[in-house]
Amino acid sequence: MTMYDIILKKREGKALSKEEISYFVKGYTEGSIPDYQASALLMAVFFKGLSHDETFLLTDAMMRSGDIVDLSSIEGVKVDKHSTGGVGDKTTLIAGPLAAACGVSVAKMSGRGLGFTGGTVDKMESVPGMRTSLAAEEFISLVNRAKLAVIGQTGHIAPADKKLYALRDVTATVDNLSLIASSVMSKKLASGSDAFVLDVKCGSGAFMETIEEAKALGEIMVEIGAASGKKTIALVTNMDRPLGRGVGNGIEVMEAIETLKGTGPADITELSLRLASHMIFAGGAVASPDAGYEAAKRALSSGAGLDKLRALIEGQGGNPAVIDDFSLFPKAARSVVVRADTDGYIVGVAARDIGIASRRSGAGRETKDDAIDLSAGVVLHKTVGDFVKAGDSLAVVYGNDEARLHEAAAVAKAAFLTGPEKAAPTPLIHAVIAGF
Amino acid sequence: MTMYDIILKKREGKALSKEEISYFVKGYTEGSIPDYQASALLMAVFFKGLSHDETFLLTDAMMRSGDIVDLSSIEGVKVDKHSTGGVGDKTTLIAGPLAAACGVSVAKMSGRGLGFTGGTVDKMESVPGMRTSLAAEEFISLVNRAKLAVIGQTGHIAPADKKLYALRDVTATVDNLSLIASSVMSKKLASGSDAFVLDVKCGSGAFMETIEEAKALGEIMVEIGAASGKKTIALVTNMDRPLGRGVGNGIEVMEAIETLKGTGPADITELSLRLASHMIFAGGAVASPDAGYEAAKRALSSGAGLDKLRALIEGQGGNPAVIDDFSLFPKAARSVVVRADTDGYIVGVAARDIGIASRRSGAGRETKDDAIDLSAGVVLHKTVGDFVKAGDSLAVVYGNDEARLHEAAAVAKAAFLTGPEKAAPTPLIHAVIAGF
Repeated sequence: MTMYDIILKKREGKALSKEEISYFVKGYTEGSIPDYQASALLMAVFFKGLSHDETFLLTDAMMRSGDIVDLSSIEGVKVDKHSTGGVGDKTTLIAGPLAAACGVSVAKMSGRGLGFTGGTVDKMESVPGMRTSLAAEEFISLVNRAKLAVIGQTGHIAPADKKLYALRDVTATVDNLSLIASSVMSKKLASGSDAFVLDVKCGSGAFMETIEEAKALGEIMVEIGAASGKKTIALVTNMDRPLGRGVGNGIEVMEAIETLKGTGPADITELSLRLASHMIFAGGAVASPDAGYEAAKRALSSGAGLDKLRALIEGQGGNPAVIDDFSLFPKAARSVVVRADTDGYIVGVAARDIGIASRRSGAGRETKDDAIDLSAGVVLHKTVGDFVKAGDSLAVVYGNDEARLHEAAAVAKAAFLTGPEKAAPTPLIHAVIAGF
Repeated sequence: MTMYDIILKKREGKALSKEEISYFVKGYTEGSIPDYQASALLMAVFFKGLSHDETFLLTDAMMRSGDIVDLSSIEGVKVDKHSTGGVGDKTTLIAGPLAAACGVSVAKMSGRGLGFTGGTVDKMESVPGMRTSLAAEEFISLVNRAKLAVIGQTGHIAPADKKLYALRDVTATVDNLSLIASSVMSKKLASGSDAFVLDVKCGSGAFMETIEEAKALGEIMVEIGAASGKKTIALVTNMDRPLGRGVGNGIEVMEAIETLKGTGPADITELSLRLASHMIFAGGAVASPDAGYEAAKRALSSGAGLDKLRALIEGQGGNPAVIDDFSLFPKAARSVVVRADTDGYIVGVAARDIGIASRRSGAGRETKDDAIDLSAGVVLHKTVGDFVKAGDSLAVVYGNDEARLHEAAAVAKAAFLTGPEKAAPTPLIHAVIAGF
């Protein structure tokens, strides 16, 4: 077997065998297969696709390329939740505590911000003292005690995916459903949970722009999960506009806390409840997603969810006083108000632009080694459906660098689209795909 | 402009601009664009193709990536002849002298054997003393004096092609017509001649297996030549079976000498005359290919062609006595006879198998650093149309390594296909494509 023959076979549209896929993944991870052959194969995959079997085999091989986390010492069904990446998406910090409050174990490994989308690990670090890197025993012990822990991904999870993703990123071979699905699922499967709730974002602020593409991606990931014997549910959700009102790290944690107090924006509250409902159902605590939804609502109104967030913060070394005193969060020295130029209804707030504005304000990384400003970000004062008059404040951009804030404000302003009539509301959830 | 954007654009099937193609070729040659981005682009080109304009631009950029040989101090029209690679193809050593004898200047840069096909430079080195690497002044002076010189390609001709070809070779992106055409033509155009006669081989022993593919390749190359203002003619010729009776280095030079003496096999004589006729016509010595054919025939029968081969050998330091004394060629110590198993007509002699047998006997390189045995090769005793009886000698394999000779003989034997009826003769030349 040679890599040349594998490239040629895929170029000719033939299905690769288990042995060929393993040979490629192993050889590429070890360095015996060079980047230039891997990128040729990836481009051939882009054009000829992978069958469901091949996608599963690729996922499996990448999953086995590094450590497979053993969570067997955690009691009960371990549920993980994953988002394909959105703007203002702090649902992990709401749905996680709600599900934990309903008795489900949430042992989550999360990522950092990428491009214009945020990452839960960065957000959590805005809580003073919070540690996002725990040794395995501490992580497991915390989940057993509090039902919930969220840490950064270790370097040994699916190293094949890490190396391949970096290559895809520079060779225009990222946007293929099979490659995206296998990348996500190899990491999820290696992270040791028993069930997965996947939030597949769709719209102008997401990787998948159309509902059809997002559904297709959700279906492949659900099939991979099912083929691995893991309960997997995918929700296809709207990402045309940011979720909630706040985008940034500390800003989003504050909004998550408000939501768990019952005073958060309607969209973020509803999506968090829906995600939690499927986590609770997948975790076996209730007999249906509807029963899960009722349980999540009770955990919200009773404050049990907020208690779980407090336990999470305490358990990972953070200062739980932030929950009642937002002044303990990193504070931006500067802010710039974004104002409306004309009267009219807001008919769109482009999630992508707000994400880019937030990154520019300092909340995200422009290159992967950039430090981030945990106080920076964007707070929307108006959103879709609101009527504004010229001069009204649309949003405020926070941060510590005056020049960057003005640039961020200009981008944020361009995100707002006004019109003479109120736009029809767009659905929050487009589809639910369940694999069991 | 970034390489990422160039890959993406081609992946989406859009035409690359002159600036983009130059940026890629320059960056890749210099090393600022890595192999893995180049191979991703090549695979995208494989699937999306290059337009005629893009192919011409790629050829032009690769041609300009290194030295462009200046042959302006050679009098008259300089004509080059190129073959896409065949088995037993010694036509350069026959057509070249015939064209030179008719007054055309032939300043040829030739290659070494590749895969199972031979190369003129290797063949020439079987003549004792022959130098295939001459300084520019010596090369030009020899062409001015003898009308003919054949040397190896220098390292500075189209380095972009050299680097890209090596990459294509390991990433399954060789067999694309635009990439093949631009590879051949970038080197030809950089080598400084004014007119080109291209022999596009077609059949089981050639890169292009079908006549349609070979014609398409010939058409692209002729268009590139025409777009560069060079007279270019492509002949699509049969390579289902070896040309002539001898395959190997010294073996082929001896057959070339016999052919110039008028006693060579009919196929090699006819193809050489046809190639020479187009060289003589393209060189402006006659008004039509037909007139060129008559001139070439006269040069053959008068011995003027043989005299030119002698002048070539003398001019490049070789011993011209080889022409009348074949015992001066390197002599193989061993030989193995290949015999027929059954009675019947020979209906096929697979060129590819004979090429592989010749390489195995020692005449070619299995890896690029192998030394070659100039005495080794295959001589056919029977060919298509002959009737054989069981036990008759079909061929003899020559060389110096007993074990390899037996392996080579087994492969050579497999090349012979017999049947109960005489096969209809196949045409030697399928098409002539002229671009002026």
